[in-house]
Amino acid sequence: MTFVEATCSAPVNIAVIKYWGKRDTALILPTNSSLSLTLSQDDLRSTTSIRADATFTRDALWLNGSSVALDGEGRMTTCLEEMRKLRRQLEQSASQKDIDGKALSSCHLHIVSENNFPTAAGLASSASGFAALVFTLAKLYQLPENASELSRIARQGSGSACRSLFGGYVAWEMGASADGQDSLAVQVAPETHWAGMKALICVVSDAKKGTSSTSGMQRTVQTSTLLQERINSVVPERMAEITKAINQRDFDTFATITMKDSNSFHAVCMDTFPPIFYLNDVSRSIIAVITELNRLSTEAGKGLVAAYTFDAGPNAVIYALEQSMPEIIALVSHFFPGKDRKEGSLPAGFNVKVSTVFPPESVSRLIHTRVGDGPRVLSADHSLVASDGQPKRIA
Amino acid sequence: MTFVEATCSAPVNIAVIKYWGKRDTALILPTNSSLSLTLSQDDLRSTTSIRADATFTRDALWLNGSSVALDGEGRMTTCLEEMRKLRRQLEQSASQKDIDGKALSSCHLHIVSENNFPTAAGLASSASGFAALVFTLAKLYQLPENASELSRIARQGSGSACRSLFGGYVAWEMGASADGQDSLAVQVAPETHWAGMKALICVVSDAKKGTSSTSGMQRTVQTSTLLQERINSVVPERMAEITKAINQRDFDTFATITMKDSNSFHAVCMDTFPPIFYLNDVSRSIIAVITELNRLSTEAGKGLVAAYTFDAGPNAVIYALEQSMPEIIALVSHFFPGKDRKEGSLPAGFNVKVSTVFPPESVSRLIHTRVGDGPRVLSADHSLVASDGQPKRIA
Repeated sequence: MTFVEATCSAPVNIAVIKYWGKRDTALILPTNSSLSLTLSQDDLRSTTSIRADATFTRDALWLNGSSVALDGEGRMTTCLEEMRKLRRQLEQSASQKDIDGKALSSCHLHIVSENNFPTAAGLASSASGFAALVFTLAKLYQLPENASELSRIARQGSGSACRSLFGGYVAWEMGASADGQDSLAVQVAPETHWAGMKALICVVSDAKKGTSSTSGMQRTVQTSTLLQERINSVVPERMAEITKAINQRDFDTFATITMKDSNSFHAVCMDTFPPIFYLNDVSRSIIAVITELNRLSTEAGKGLVAAYTFDAGPNAVIYALEQSMPEIIALVSHFFPGKDRKEGSLPAGFNVKVSTVFPPESVSRLIHTRVGDGPRVLSADHSLVASDGQPKRIA
Repeated sequence: MTFVEATCSAPVNIAVIKYWGKRDTALILPTNSSLSLTLSQDDLRSTTSIRADATFTRDALWLNGSSVALDGEGRMTTCLEEMRKLRRQLEQSASQKDIDGKALSSCHLHIVSENNFPTAAGLASSASGFAALVFTLAKLYQLPENASELSRIARQGSGSACRSLFGGYVAWEMGASADGQDSLAVQVAPETHWAGMKALICVVSDAKKGTSSTSGMQRTVQTSTLLQERINSVVPERMAEITKAINQRDFDTFATITMKDSNSFHAVCMDTFPPIFYLNDVSRSIIAVITELNRLSTEAGKGLVAAYTFDAGPNAVIYALEQSMPEIIALVSHFFPGKDRKEGSLPAGFNVKVSTVFPPESVSRLIHTRVGDGPRVLSADHSLVASDGQPKRIA
């Protein structure tokens, strides 16, 4: 045997309590805890194959079929080095198999990673990508570490990646220690906990490339006069409240906090100097439409039916229970017509004045998915590495 | 003589430290102090004529040529009653002339008020309108009260109206007393203090009618978790800083605080639940364009050249010194072409990617004005009341 290999996939997660701000930019330690829902890998995933071969002469990485330079520094290297360190500890403490007499931790790696969703969709791929990287390395290296321990390392690749190590409802506890040992993800509830929890991703076209979240959040930390209030008071209270709401499957509270925290996050972005805008007119109208739908439903005594949330971009993610989704999709399709959806309709009593009907493809795509499980180990059939150690697919 | 009459005009003001939130909705007592610049009445004004006639059988009001019912309650009535009370005190303390034997305070009034700018322009007319009402009544009633004392009454018509009783740079001090006696406007500096201070109003078209400021600000008070921080900490510091900057004619500090406070105000609107959006994609792009212009200028060692500020709507007001205005108008005209402006141009080195060029008339009008004086007493030639006591102009 000249090589060992592992292939795994990891999910995307969309936060309901937002991560925005680092207290340590090198270790990626956040200024507040956050909480997300893991979305199903059946719809959205990063898949990563990693091969270790004694004959490889260097570490190499391909993302979506394109070679990416590994320059021996940066976040990718941090994750690789942390994982190699764990492997070396294992090799020292026990007799582990080598490859052709060479310790596995000393072998170079070929890493091939792909997302099944277009980068153009504006969905953060770094979370699922780093989660897949760290999880696949853990399998390759046969490490005993649990998901929370791995999340501590994935966090150093991309903060929110730590939450993609788990399925279901996942908290990233900010921790208190300076070295970040207690800043890691824990599962609040598994994906099976709340039957029927669905997500509708509305991919919003935007002419203008927004501020990157890495630079944006640091500008907020440096300049916003409202962020400290969010960090010290608003988020801790919401973390406790939404955890309880999830445990009790209380959709009204879950939805209210989700929408408020999305608003709060975009508020501190606007309070940044110069201000950061991620929401555009389409995003604003999605909010207005969901707000009106919830008003109608609440007045009818049925409580809230949908919760919008927006990350660092104009795309909306709408969380709702399964029975509400047909109505929500019809509503979105009415105001935001597009090729991939039927003509939309409105519930009786809906105030159409809350939004204009937008030109076709203002929402370019709707992705209807659900809460899903954590990283999966895939069989060798799914390997992205060809027999010659190069990627099967080159872009 | 069967009647007495007075005609006055009052200016618009645009705040640089924003008023948002009432601690007493009946008395219109604000949750924070605010500060504005009074704009020239040569360009924007409310003109009001008030006639008292012993033969009038009721109080009557015409706004922009349309009759408006005075139902004996509401803010207009509050202002009328407060002013009549002052007149009665005067009549009791001194021998004042009556009209045909009837005390002036007992005569009914015909009030005719007009704005020289279209309501559709989205410029708040209530501030100039209530300032003109109260100031004209003070003249009609020959009251000795000074502008700050009158501002206390105008405040009860429309909060920001109190600031339109002065020219130049005007603070509305929130006060502490429950009856509102110390919640009034004071002049920070006269209009002549800072030569060359100009304002460019960019009237932005918006399909959707926004939330009214009266209902919006109370929703913010009730639901925003960030407003208290703005009220208690952010605004008091900025009030002191910008007052000093105005006194020292320090444009850099003035502009920075102006932009930050506009951002902060819109941030707490977004943090409201449901959220309030006044800025649209055109507003966002005006911010991006001014930010880039300031970046260029700062890098060239010339400091900031422009400050944007947005009230409860998508219109931008850009404060700048006279020598910078041609460049700013050319820049705005480039990204927001329109019938009333020449083809625009960009300064060398300007990053055009900060904004797309918008369709013509996205900014429907540019109004170039300056800091101006307080309410003016006009001659009888300017009366809006015809000899029969009815408005000269009916819409």
